[in-house]
Amino acid sequence: MKPLRRLAILGLGLIGGSFAAALKQRGMVQEVVGWGHREASLRHGRELGVIDDYSLDLAAAVAGADLVVIATPTRTAECVLADLAPILMQPAQAHTLVTDVASVKGNVVAAAARVLGKALPRFVPGHPIAGSEQSGVGAARADLFVDHRVILTPTAETAPAATRRVEELWGHVGAEVIEMSVSEHDAVLAATSHLPHLLAYSLVASLAASPRGEAIFRYAAGGFRDFTRIASSDPTMWHDIALANREALLAALDEFNVYLDGLRAAVDRADSAQIMSVFERAKLARDRFAQQLTPSPTISQE
Amino acid sequence: MKPLRRLAILGLGLIGGSFAAALKQRGMVQEVVGWGHREASLRHGRELGVIDDYSLDLAAAVAGADLVVIATPTRTAECVLADLAPILMQPAQAHTLVTDVASVKGNVVAAAARVLGKALPRFVPGHPIAGSEQSGVGAARADLFVDHRVILTPTAETAPAATRRVEELWGHVGAEVIEMSVSEHDAVLAATSHLPHLLAYSLVASLAASPRGEAIFRYAAGGFRDFTRIASSDPTMWHDIALANREALLAALDEFNVYLDGLRAAVDRADSAQIMSVFERAKLARDRFAQQLTPSPTISQE
Repeated sequence: MKPLRRLAILGLGLIGGSFAAALKQRGMVQEVVGWGHREASLRHGRELGVIDDYSLDLAAAVAGADLVVIATPTRTAECVLADLAPILMQPAQAHTLVTDVASVKGNVVAAAARVLGKALPRFVPGHPIAGSEQSGVGAARADLFVDHRVILTPTAETAPAATRRVEELWGHVGAEVIEMSVSEHDAVLAATSHLPHLLAYSLVASLAASPRGEAIFRYAAGGFRDFTRIASSDPTMWHDIALANREALLAALDEFNVYLDGLRAAVDRADSAQIMSVFERAKLARDRFAQQLTPSPTISQE
Repeated sequence: MKPLRRLAILGLGLIGGSFAAALKQRGMVQEVVGWGHREASLRHGRELGVIDDYSLDLAAAVAGADLVVIATPTRTAECVLADLAPILMQPAQAHTLVTDVASVKGNVVAAAARVLGKALPRFVPGHPIAGSEQSGVGAARADLFVDHRVILTPTAETAPAATRRVEELWGHVGAEVIEMSVSEHDAVLAATSHLPHLLAYSLVASLAASPRGEAIFRYAAGGFRDFTRIASSDPTMWHDIALANREALLAALDEFNVYLDGLRAAVDRADSAQIMSVFERAKLARDRFAQQLTPSPTISQE
């Protein structure tokens, strides 16, 4: 497989930094350039050897890159695409591919279709599912994607060769690459990630506001810790995701509420058969899920 | 501290077995007798050395015991109390203390008040908060309660000396003992344990029923695994708890729903300030909780 000559990481954090580190470690890139708004992060990334150089100027960072990775927070990705468009139109950048790592694909793909023009076929929307509560380039690890999944959501406009190249690179750093439609991706992620975050945030906020709040947190145990762990995630990031994936999230929440309301009514009327039926189906599905899941160590700050 | 001469464990599972093993290991009991409906479990407990002897006959098991621990599932505890009452009334059993380990205290305390008569002062309602997804006497461990909390909920009828004796024994096996009113206990546990189980079961059941169910579970990641872990808990046990603590559970659910509905409306109208406010308050409370929590290893089958 042909290594990249020059890789540009736009927004140098955990994901972008780990991708750069992983490609470097495997000799898959000659030069990595970072771009972002915070010079301190970029300098830190260069000190760590995650990137070779950086620029605060987008055109300079992207110049000569054969791959640009938009690794900024979800909602910023749309703005970066707009700034990137005129640069990608230049003849010298005619072979530059672009991918992103945002958690929601619908808004990014729509923005790309609006702004990228003839560069649109070179944009491969992507989402590595490698969660961590840590963030920042200081947490970057060359093995972050090993045995993790990366979902690519190419559209009818995406050049198949561009998709293949991005797929090849993710595969090379140990990820299992899956293709999915944009709407399927956003619905699946709403259900398995965005909705659980909404529920965890709601629960903890509701308990914290309770007059019993202090006692509640004092006597909570391990199950509560696991259940609410995601409520310690970055509020800004999850605010952005909730709004970027608003429709799919609300649809998933409404489906969930049908079940929750049903279960509430069953408990209220002491309907043992109905309660047992929901609990048993859930346990069956959860046990099957746990068996399928690769037992990979999760990164946790606790 | 005076050791127990004879301890009777009614319902020999993880909790009862671990309490017996812990007291034995510390030389705090001369003889442990088990009672239950399943002879195989009792035989297994004797083979493991968790108990010294067993009987399928309640009166024989309790005869001469200075402490009886009702360690059956939550709803069975009420029935066991009724069967136990006439035995405790016998003059030979006038000094036998009784405690229990059920996750809900309101129903057990009400049953005790109904059936125990003059033996009521000798009943100390208790709840060790030592969670595990494992169950059965085979999972019993002498160190299960070390650095875990045990909540006692003595009532106005409970003899203070009885409470002190039970407190002393739990403290001796490493637990931190806390006293709380019955209603406070049930409200706190509804919020931190019973409601999260209801939410996790509802979410997994709702996703399993979705036409996207298979894809959803295939692409779920670490956050989802933690969030839904409690949906792998025993359905019968949690059915019993949900019904035993029905009122407090529904109250906690309704409080939660106010927050969830508010958050849903905020996402729907893209009210960034409101979303951020809920997420930030939740993160603050969750982070504070995580700092307080003793970093004790949780037992998990995964």
